[in-house]
Amino acid sequence: MSHADDARHMAHALGLARRGLGNVWPNPAVGCVIVRDGIVVARGWTQPGGRPHAERFALDAAGDKARGATAYVTLEPCSHYGKTPPCADALIAAGVARVVVALTDPDPRVAGRGLARLRAAGVTVTEGVGRDQAAALNRGFLNRITLGRPMLTLKLATSLDGRIATASGESRWITGAEARRQVHLLRLTHDAVMVGGGTARADLPALNVRGFGPVRQPVRVIASARGDIPPLPEDHDAGPLWLLHDRDVAVALPPGARGIGVDSVQGHLDPVAMMRALAGAGLTRVLCEGGGALAASLLAAGLVDDLITYSAGLVLGAEGRAAVAALPLAPLSAMPRLRLRGVRRLGGDVMQLWSVVNE
Amino acid sequence: MSHADDARHMAHALGLARRGLGNVWPNPAVGCVIVRDGIVVARGWTQPGGRPHAERFALDAAGDKARGATAYVTLEPCSHYGKTPPCADALIAAGVARVVVALTDPDPRVAGRGLARLRAAGVTVTEGVGRDQAAALNRGFLNRITLGRPMLTLKLATSLDGRIATASGESRWITGAEARRQVHLLRLTHDAVMVGGGTARADLPALNVRGFGPVRQPVRVIASARGDIPPLPEDHDAGPLWLLHDRDVAVALPPGARGIGVDSVQGHLDPVAMMRALAGAGLTRVLCEGGGALAASLLAAGLVDDLITYSAGLVLGAEGRAAVAALPLAPLSAMPRLRLRGVRRLGGDVMQLWSVVNE
Repeated sequence: MSHADDARHMAHALGLARRGLGNVWPNPAVGCVIVRDGIVVARGWTQPGGRPHAERFALDAAGDKARGATAYVTLEPCSHYGKTPPCADALIAAGVARVVVALTDPDPRVAGRGLARLRAAGVTVTEGVGRDQAAALNRGFLNRITLGRPMLTLKLATSLDGRIATASGESRWITGAEARRQVHLLRLTHDAVMVGGGTARADLPALNVRGFGPVRQPVRVIASARGDIPPLPEDHDAGPLWLLHDRDVAVALPPGARGIGVDSVQGHLDPVAMMRALAGAGLTRVLCEGGGALAASLLAAGLVDDLITYSAGLVLGAEGRAAVAALPLAPLSAMPRLRLRGVRRLGGDVMQLWSVVNE
Repeated sequence: MSHADDARHMAHALGLARRGLGNVWPNPAVGCVIVRDGIVVARGWTQPGGRPHAERFALDAAGDKARGATAYVTLEPCSHYGKTPPCADALIAAGVARVVVALTDPDPRVAGRGLARLRAAGVTVTEGVGRDQAAALNRGFLNRITLGRPMLTLKLATSLDGRIATASGESRWITGAEARRQVHLLRLTHDAVMVGGGTARADLPALNVRGFGPVRQPVRVIASARGDIPPLPEDHDAGPLWLLHDRDVAVALPPGARGIGVDSVQGHLDPVAMMRALAGAGLTRVLCEGGGALAASLLAAGLVDDLITYSAGLVLGAEGRAAVAALPLAPLSAMPRLRLRGVRRLGGDVMQLWSVVNE
């Protein structure tokens, strides 16, 4: 098969993998396309909750047609017995002749063993087709495995002068309905939605996905050193509630909530410890929706991967609440620069996607 | 001639008129196209400094070909003797058979008299072709005549969290070279560039147009109640320097500078009085480039027509200088909303154009 065919089928598999974003933690979102004689005979993607894996799903759909076929997989097939038998073995057993993978799995339980297992069984293996796209897609999983922290998206919905609320604290609504709907889509592709304790107390946010039918709701994470959170609105359709708090503070948890104690520094939760704890709990993609203090703490610690801004057509002035609290002073030339990845209109607002450049 | 032909020729004339923006104050920027037998025989636009007028320029170019022709003019031809004889008379004298105008001139010295004069001489007059575009193009002139103030564009070059400088006052450079070059183009299409005294003292800005060859430089306006301005860099190619100051304060002007005393309230220049003074001095299009106090004062008084933001990919935090100082508190639902008119990437930055909605 030609390079162009390989690229095309892998792009297809990447599109399938994308369906898993926000749905499959602690697992990676993987896509799989099985092709025989140039014809797609089956497709699979990691199912909600992380199982079945993409390969298992596609092989079940392919049945006998997998024999002699090529499987395009966006991540190296697993080689270890976890909650499911290894996908590498399943591909071999199904008689797949060739496996094309985008990315080697950095999970130390896999880390090349899946490919070695395939090769040892006589399967032809091609690596690296669509590697960059696969790495971008699975940045959350890769961050968790290689850096011990989830991918972190920071969302700021501000006035044109960077304010998230009026001086009196009013913030509903700065942006319009289209931008707010887009935020719900953003939540849908993240494992968890996180806010600081101040925002939780001030806004009583529901932190769930609304308007997209039945979905796997993201975990609601509140970061409050004192563990002082108000009763959030308990929508019947909301994800579990996790409370990040100072490990030395005793907290009274709402029913069903999970407390996670982390280190704090001078009364503030250590942002690195927070992210480590969330990765340890299995999260791969976290969306932080403020407030300014939490945003500043995460930015200052270099933990933000993507920054998404929604700018509304109004000006609130310097007494409005700042989107990002004080940061350490540095010369402009030494400030980290973000790279613009996209900009679009959303109704009367403007959405911008910026990525922190890590080189 | 068909409606479509009229619209097309007027669009052509509007394009010519645009060349005058920033160059022709206190006059309006007008365009004129002369068409005979479907063929464009001459084009004209208001020349730098405001004279010759567009019609005079085009008629001179057309010569005998104007006889029996149709003239497309973006604004009603003048009917009074100013520094030049009336254009209405010139069109009649040249034998133009039909005049199509986009907009009636609200100048009380004209105000329909130009069209009446043409009609009285037997010239066919069609009004209103391209009216909205002509009104938008000449918003500065229309503001000056009908509201007694220039059109005001507020420019903000900020970090993603709306800061125009670091806590230590560093602001060079937040945005990149492409955005900064675009700001010079913006200056080029305005009659004057204005900053507050604090910004003048902190930044010592040149406030001229650089990088576009020889141009008519905008007037440099400093608004400082105390009249306390530092020696600005005297680029050999810069516009005249005007100082807006408290009328009750004696100021020492730099050589060649012009002082304009206006009313002040509690030590701050009254923004309405400032704009009235600038319109009185002939300005039609003013670009305000900060700082935060002046921007807030103009916004609070409802004097800003367009707001142009340049957002750079960095975050400066709450101790950075605010783009807009404190504004009066109002409920979000009562805040004036701006309408998004355009958004584009400029190198690594994002430019947004917002208009204040006046209905």
